[in-house]
Amino acid sequence: MSGSVDECITRLLALAKRFNCFYLSGFHSSECKPFVVEGYQVGLIRPDVMKELIHFPEVFHVTPGCVELNPAFRDYQERSVKVNEVLKELRKKNTFITLKGWRDECYEVKAEFNTTSLLKMDRSATCLFGIRNYGVTINGYVRHPQQGQCLWFQKRASTKQTWPGKWDNMVSGGLSVGHGILETAHKEAMEEASVPPYLLQNLISTSCVSFFFESERGLFPNTEFVFDLELPVDFVPENADGEVDTFEILPVTKCLEKILSPDFKTTSSPVVLDFLIRHGVVTPENEPNYLSIIEFLHVPLQTVYGRCHNKMKENGISLSNI
Amino acid sequence: MSGSVDECITRLLALAKRFNCFYLSGFHSSECKPFVVEGYQVGLIRPDVMKELIHFPEVFHVTPGCVELNPAFRDYQERSVKVNEVLKELRKKNTFITLKGWRDECYEVKAEFNTTSLLKMDRSATCLFGIRNYGVTINGYVRHPQQGQCLWFQKRASTKQTWPGKWDNMVSGGLSVGHGILETAHKEAMEEASVPPYLLQNLISTSCVSFFFESERGLFPNTEFVFDLELPVDFVPENADGEVDTFEILPVTKCLEKILSPDFKTTSSPVVLDFLIRHGVVTPENEPNYLSIIEFLHVPLQTVYGRCHNKMKENGISLSNI
Repeated sequence: MSGSVDECITRLLALAKRFNCFYLSGFHSSECKPFVVEGYQVGLIRPDVMKELIHFPEVFHVTPGCVELNPAFRDYQERSVKVNEVLKELRKKNTFITLKGWRDECYEVKAEFNTTSLLKMDRSATCLFGIRNYGVTINGYVRHPQQGQCLWFQKRASTKQTWPGKWDNMVSGGLSVGHGILETAHKEAMEEASVPPYLLQNLISTSCVSFFFESERGLFPNTEFVFDLELPVDFVPENADGEVDTFEILPVTKCLEKILSPDFKTTSSPVVLDFLIRHGVVTPENEPNYLSIIEFLHVPLQTVYGRCHNKMKENGISLSNI
Repeated sequence: MSGSVDECITRLLALAKRFNCFYLSGFHSSECKPFVVEGYQVGLIRPDVMKELIHFPEVFHVTPGCVELNPAFRDYQERSVKVNEVLKELRKKNTFITLKGWRDECYEVKAEFNTTSLLKMDRSATCLFGIRNYGVTINGYVRHPQQGQCLWFQKRASTKQTWPGKWDNMVSGGLSVGHGILETAHKEAMEEASVPPYLLQNLISTSCVSFFFESERGLFPNTEFVFDLELPVDFVPENADGEVDTFEILPVTKCLEKILSPDFKTTSSPVVLDFLIRHGVVTPENEPNYLSIIEFLHVPLQTVYGRCHNKMKENGISLSNI
């Protein structure tokens, strides 16, 4: 494999479909049921998960149309505690692989990204409920005098709970409870790659990518806030938190080969693809599926969960009674 | 109006909804019917247009489910000629405003962007059939030592057939029959702004935006291929084809005010918005509707026209008989 841009280019649509495997298949089947909290659909639940939730009727109301969190729970605090109790039970029973990677780090569960949180949930559990999750990624790049534009990658430590040993973006991290977007970008840049504060002043917010992936662990409607960071040619990232095995820098023309490799974390490739599109490496002239690929980098996760439930709520209809 | 970034920011979602007015309303009503050619849905037809097409049953088969181009037409050539004859009739009758701006310049009509063209149609008529159209836009920008990043705009000539006298991107043009994407970008840059070839070497393909607009003229499912072009501080665009009234350069922090003004061409604002997002002016930290706005810059036009018709075709069912 010479890894030339031209050779890789026709394989990109297949990759874009791979990181949207749930959007293209399961999402359109009627197997999964909406997960509803306070009248808002906040997720989607697979049959294997529903089968377990049925055993907790005081917390989850499984109806023909949806799975609803008990509307009697009064507030954020109570909802978070009640769900957490169920998750701890399920964890003890060893029912779900994903709960073996319990994080003691929570994600917010919201109707929309910019609305008040309804509850928090351990990040290892959100994929069981198809909760949209949000992260931050930094493309660390260099303008090399001989090699042209080059992009840094990290190899994940073999001890990581998810995607161990896979290649990944230079810096990324989930947006967990209590942390802002830019704050998370700065924190992760320092922890994962020891980027000093004076270099972080060059950080530029450039886009987001949204895609809907599924694995044996669960459902992943992911949105990544993307930043570009131009680095000096002589900067070498150094890991500070033990979560990275090594770093590598590649000319942008070699990056397609990198993300198409089975050693690359599937759900990190959208950010690289977006970078290569924004910087003129993947173009409508060299990629016949350019428009479709860009659509797959922006699947409508913000509107994908219907709003019919809000209306029921407004009309005072409890979903449990439908 | 001070035009500060913060003041403009909450009005951006309203703008994004404006350039997607059809996507958000008409598209979900059942008023419009699919326009089908050779078994592929290539457009959408409003009731006012259908009312006229009924008078040409030898060309258009108006059925309860769709409007189909007579499947007896053998090829690209015949389909193009037959449709053109109808359009010339309608033009004589003065039925549609848009046909007063007849262009003698055709757009291709395709099932998908990268498939063979089924017919060509005068660009003034494509909005009557909701044909997806494709264009090219160049963001001409400067890194000014005092004013920071600045973006060039053009004011359209008052003699233009569409949006006369409105402010617009520095360079843009429709992708018409026989012209490639990069070729169109170069051609328009030279004609509209006299950008010399040596500067065009800096042209970078950066993205596309897709949105679905409607006006009194018709339906506009638009996709723009976007290029960034860094220009020297002392470069001043000069129009060469009489289609531009004047040019103006603005610091990026003033650009939101510009595109929010009623003097700005609504359907050109998505490209500016995309530029301001990619260059860190509009960010998830300063724009609460950041994710929704990005969704509205990428509505799924490539998949929005259903594919059920292809299947009918494959099964040998003529739509006219349904």
